[in-house]
Amino acid sequence: MSNSPSYWPLHQQVAAIASGDLSARDLVLAYTERLEAYDSQLATHVTLSNSALEEAAAIDKALARGEKLGPLAGACISVKDNYLTHNMPTRAGTDVAEISFPETDSHVVAKLRKAGAIILGKTRMHEFAWGNITPPTRNPWNTQCVPGGSSGGSAAAVAAGLCSAAMGSDTGGSVRIPATLCGTVGLKPTFGLVGRTGIVPHSWSLDHAGPLTRTVTDAALILEALVGSDADDPASLSAPEIRYQPSANPTIKGFRIGVIRNHFSERISADVADNFATVQEWLKHKGVEIQEFDVPNLDYGLGAIFAIELASSSAYHEQALQSGLTSGFQSDVRDLVEMGRLVSAVDYLHAEQLRSELCKDFARIFNTVDLVISPTSPITAWNSGQWELDIEGSLESVLAASWRFTYPFNLTGMPAISVPSGFDGKGLPIGLQIAGPPLSERKVLTFAAAFEAEHPHAEDKPVGFN
Amino acid sequence: MSNSPSYWPLHQQVAAIASGDLSARDLVLAYTERLEAYDSQLATHVTLSNSALEEAAAIDKALARGEKLGPLAGACISVKDNYLTHNMPTRAGTDVAEISFPETDSHVVAKLRKAGAIILGKTRMHEFAWGNITPPTRNPWNTQCVPGGSSGGSAAAVAAGLCSAAMGSDTGGSVRIPATLCGTVGLKPTFGLVGRTGIVPHSWSLDHAGPLTRTVTDAALILEALVGSDADDPASLSAPEIRYQPSANPTIKGFRIGVIRNHFSERISADVADNFATVQEWLKHKGVEIQEFDVPNLDYGLGAIFAIELASSSAYHEQALQSGLTSGFQSDVRDLVEMGRLVSAVDYLHAEQLRSELCKDFARIFNTVDLVISPTSPITAWNSGQWELDIEGSLESVLAASWRFTYPFNLTGMPAISVPSGFDGKGLPIGLQIAGPPLSERKVLTFAAAFEAEHPHAEDKPVGFN
Repeated sequence: MSNSPSYWPLHQQVAAIASGDLSARDLVLAYTERLEAYDSQLATHVTLSNSALEEAAAIDKALARGEKLGPLAGACISVKDNYLTHNMPTRAGTDVAEISFPETDSHVVAKLRKAGAIILGKTRMHEFAWGNITPPTRNPWNTQCVPGGSSGGSAAAVAAGLCSAAMGSDTGGSVRIPATLCGTVGLKPTFGLVGRTGIVPHSWSLDHAGPLTRTVTDAALILEALVGSDADDPASLSAPEIRYQPSANPTIKGFRIGVIRNHFSERISADVADNFATVQEWLKHKGVEIQEFDVPNLDYGLGAIFAIELASSSAYHEQALQSGLTSGFQSDVRDLVEMGRLVSAVDYLHAEQLRSELCKDFARIFNTVDLVISPTSPITAWNSGQWELDIEGSLESVLAASWRFTYPFNLTGMPAISVPSGFDGKGLPIGLQIAGPPLSERKVLTFAAAFEAEHPHAEDKPVGFN
Repeated sequence: MSNSPSYWPLHQQVAAIASGDLSARDLVLAYTERLEAYDSQLATHVTLSNSALEEAAAIDKALARGEKLGPLAGACISVKDNYLTHNMPTRAGTDVAEISFPETDSHVVAKLRKAGAIILGKTRMHEFAWGNITPPTRNPWNTQCVPGGSSGGSAAAVAAGLCSAAMGSDTGGSVRIPATLCGTVGLKPTFGLVGRTGIVPHSWSLDHAGPLTRTVTDAALILEALVGSDADDPASLSAPEIRYQPSANPTIKGFRIGVIRNHFSERISADVADNFATVQEWLKHKGVEIQEFDVPNLDYGLGAIFAIELASSSAYHEQALQSGLTSGFQSDVRDLVEMGRLVSAVDYLHAEQLRSELCKDFARIFNTVDLVISPTSPITAWNSGQWELDIEGSLESVLAASWRFTYPFNLTGMPAISVPSGFDGKGLPIGLQIAGPPLSERKVLTFAAAFEAEHPHAEDKPVGFN
C-alpha cells in the first residue's frame, strides 16, 4: 500500500477512516491536489463538488464523537455526468444550452450519500452516452490514447488515482470498455438490480448503472450500497440486499467456466488473444474446468442492439429532434440519433425476440457451467484520432471492434465484470470479462476476486501519475 | 338445473360425472347432437374431435374402476382454432393453404387434457385473431347479430350450450367482447399467468389465454388447471398454483370498488349506461363502497395499443408479407398486417412508455380500492354487415366502439372478467367488466361470483337453442 492514500483501494480507505488512521478531510485534500495537478491533462472531471471538504469534516467529527457511519463513509466517489446531483449541474456530455436537467439526486447518488460517500465530482462522458471515445479525456496509461467510453472520465479518473471510485453507465459496454482500456475494474450488474431513476436515459432496456473501481472488493462494497428497489424505475428488481463482498481468500478450484468459441474469439488482436490463452492455462492450473460452446444467435446480436439502441435513443431525444436541437449535438451523436427514427417497430420486435433467444441460449450454457469468460474487448486503447485498426490483417472501425464482446451482456441483462488481466506489448491494459446468469453477482465477484488476487495489476499505477 | 346436461355449468357436469350421476359418454353425445342440430346455423366450430367419444368411454371406465380422475374429467372443452392440438388441424382462421401449423398440443391443451378434459373441437375465430366479428359465426341471442370476436366461435358455442366451456385468446378484448355480446363469462387472467406456448401469436406482449364459461366458478376451475409456468413462453409467471374457486356464498360487503369517470363512461349506449347505473345502485345496497377516479393517460391508450398490436402482428407475419401470402388474407386483416410495417420503433417505444405510465396510474388506484368495474363494452351485439352505429347521437365504427373498454387491461396486463349483467331492450346480453391488480384473480373471481349469484342470467338460454 502506497503512503499516499489516493491509490488505496476504496475498502482500505473507508477502513482507515473508520479506524481513525486516515481523516476523510485528508483524503479529499489528496484527491483535490491530484485533480489540480493532473486533470488539465487527463480531463476526467467536468465539475467538482464545492461541499466535499465540508462533508469530510462532518464525517471526521461524527467519528470523533464515536458515531457509527455508513459502509462508504469518507469514500470519494465521482459520478458520470448523466447522474443527477442536487448540488452540481448535470450536462450528460452535451453542450446544447437549451437542454437542461433537474438538480436533484439520482437514486444511486442518494444511496451513495446514505452509505456515507462523498460525491467528489462529475466525470466526463461521451455526449448522451453514445460512442466510446469520450473526447477530450485521455488514457492515463498513454495520454496519446483514448480512455474508451462512454464512461471514459470515470475510468481515467479511477486509473489515475483521482477519486476512490466512480460510477458509470453501461448500455453496450460503457462501463466495461473504459475499464479494460484504462486498467480498472468495471461492473455491470444484472439488469434492474441497480435503480436508474435520475440517470439521463440512453436506451432504457439496455441501460445499466455500475461502478468503476480499483479492486473487485470495492465494486462489491459499492454494489451492496446500491441494491434495493427503485420505485420510479419500472425495471427495478426488488432483490434481497445481500452481502456481495468476496471472502478474504476466495478459491476458484472446482469452478466450471464456459468459453464461447464463436463471436468472442473472432478478430482479436494478438496480444489480447495471447493474454486470454494465458488466463485459460492459469485457470486450468488452478483446478478450473473449462467447457467450450457455440452460440450461433450471436451472429445477429449487432443488428439487434443497434436497432434497440438507435430507436430508444431517438425516442428519448424526440423533442430535441422535433425542435431541431440535435443540430447542436456532436456530429457522430447527431447522426445516430437521427438514424434511429428509421428503425421500424417490426425490426425492433425482431431484435427483442433475438434477445429472448439469446437469454435461452445462455440459460442452457449455465446448466453446465457457473460463469463464462472472454476478453473484455478484442483491442486495447487506440490513439486519439484513430478510427480504424488492423486486427490481425482485418481492417475494422475501432468503435465497432471495441464493444463486440461487451454488448451481448446488455442484450441478455446478465451481470458482467471486467478485471485487469495484464498488458499488451505497448504497456496498455488488457481486461478479462467474467459474466454469469442473472443475479449471480456473488459468484461473479468471488471468481473475479480470486483472479485478481494472483494478477498483480491492481497495484500498478500508470507512469506519470504516481 | 335443466334435465339435459348441455346447459349445466361445467362444475356441475364434472361433479355429476365424478359421482356417477352422468356418464362422460352421454355428455359428449348430448353436445354432438346439439352441434349437429344447431351448428350449421351458428357456425361456432370449424373442427370436431373424432376421439371425443373414445376419451369419454375411457373416463367412464376409469371411474367404474374407482380411479380418481382430474378436476375437469369429462368436461367437453372446445378451444379456439389458434390453439395447437395434436389430433386436429389448426388454421387460426386463415384460408391461406400455404400457411400451416404444427400438429402438437399447445401448453393449455396439454394442461386441460391432464386435468381430464375432453377437447371437443376447435372454434371459429376471426382470421389470425384480428377483428371482432368472427364471420360467419352468429350470435345465439339473435342470429342476425355478430357474436363479437376474435373468439366469437368460443362465445357463441358456450352461449348456445354446444360445449361445457371454451378457450379463447384476448389481445384487446377478444375473450371479453364476445363473452359480453353472447352473454357468457369471459376471463382474461393476469399477463403471463397462463402460458401461451402453442397458441398462434397475434401480439406477444398483449396476448392472453383465457376461458369462456357459463359461470364464474367454471372459469375459476379451468384457471386452476391452467396456471403453472410454461418454459417456452418468455412471459410466463411461475405463480403459485392456488385455489381460485370462490366459496359457496361469497360476500362483497366491504369491498371498495373504483369507477373510472373518463374513457369508461364515454359514448355508451343508453341501455348499457342504464344497466351500469343499476349495477352501481345494487352494489351500494350491498354495502360496497364506490370511489371515482380519472385516468387522463387513457386518452393515449388507443394509439398505444394500435402501434403495438399492428407492429407485433406484422412482425409475426413478416414471412407471409415478404412472400406475398398476405394477398390471400381477408381484406380487413390484410390491411392491418400491411399497415403494421409503417409503425416506427420510436412510436412503439412511446406506446410501451404509456403502458408503464398506465400501470402506475392503476397501481395508485389500487392503493384505495380492491377492484375497478365498467361495462365490458359500450355496445351490445350489432347486426352482421353493420359497420357503424349511432351511440347516443355520435356515429362510430362498431369495431372501434366494441373494444374501447377492454383494451386498457391488455395494455396493463391486469386480470379482467366479463360477467353477464342483464339485457338491452332488444334482449341482447350486457356484461359487467371487473378488473383488479396483477395476480388478484382470487379477488376478481370472488366478487364476480357474488355478483353472478344475484343476477339470474347464467341460467338463461337464448331462444331457439333450448
